[in-house]
Amino acid sequence: MILLVVKLKLQAGKKDEFFNIAKPLIEASQKEAGNIEYHLYEESNEPDTVAFIEKWKDQAALDYHEKTEHFINNINKLVALCAKPPIKNSFNMLQ
Amino acid sequence: MILLVVKLKLQAGKKDEFFNIAKPLIEASQKEAGNIEYHLYEESNEPDTVAFIEKWKDQAALDYHEKTEHFINNINKLVALCAKPPIKNSFNMLQ
Repeated sequence: MILLVVKLKLQAGKKDEFFNIAKPLIEASQKEAGNIEYHLYEESNEPDTVAFIEKWKDQAALDYHEKTEHFINNINKLVALCAKPPIKNSFNMLQ
Repeated sequence: MILLVVKLKLQAGKKDEFFNIAKPLIEASQKEAGNIEYHLYEESNEPDTVAFIEKWKDQAALDYHEKTEHFINNINKLVALCAKPPIKNSFNMLQ
C-alpha cells in the first residue's frame, strides 16, 4: 500500500475555484479499483494550503491513476491555481 | 477528524532500535477510543525518514493521546534517535 501526500499552496482567493475543479477528480479517483482512499484536506495554521492524501493498493494502481482522463484533464487546472509547485511525498506502511 | 503527519529523520543505523520502541506505542495508541488510524510509514526515496500518520476523531482525542503514559514514556526515546526535530503537520478533511 502506498500513501501519497500532495501539498499545494494556493494563490490567495482561489480556494472555491480549486474545490470546484477538485470535486470531480476526487469522486472519479475514489471509484478506481486500485484506490483505497482519496481525500482533500486543508492544513491547520497554514492559510491557503491544501493536500490530497491518497492511499493506493500498489505502484501500478498509482501509475494507472496518473494516466486517467479525470487526472489528466484536471491536474493542470489545479496546479495553475497554485502559488508554487506541489510537494509530493510518498510513504510505504511499515506497521 | 484530524489527520497528523509526524515526520522523523533518524540517525543512521537507528531504524531497528526505533521500531522496537515504536511498536508498543503504536499498539497502545490504536486501542485509544479517540483513535481512527495510527501507523508508521517509511518515506520512499528518503533514507532513514519515517512518519507516524495518524487519524484522530477530534482535537480532544489528540490532546488525550499526548497525555497518555505510552506516549509520554516513549516519545522522548524516539526523538533521541532522530538526527533533527520531528516535523508535525496537521490536516482537517474537506472532502
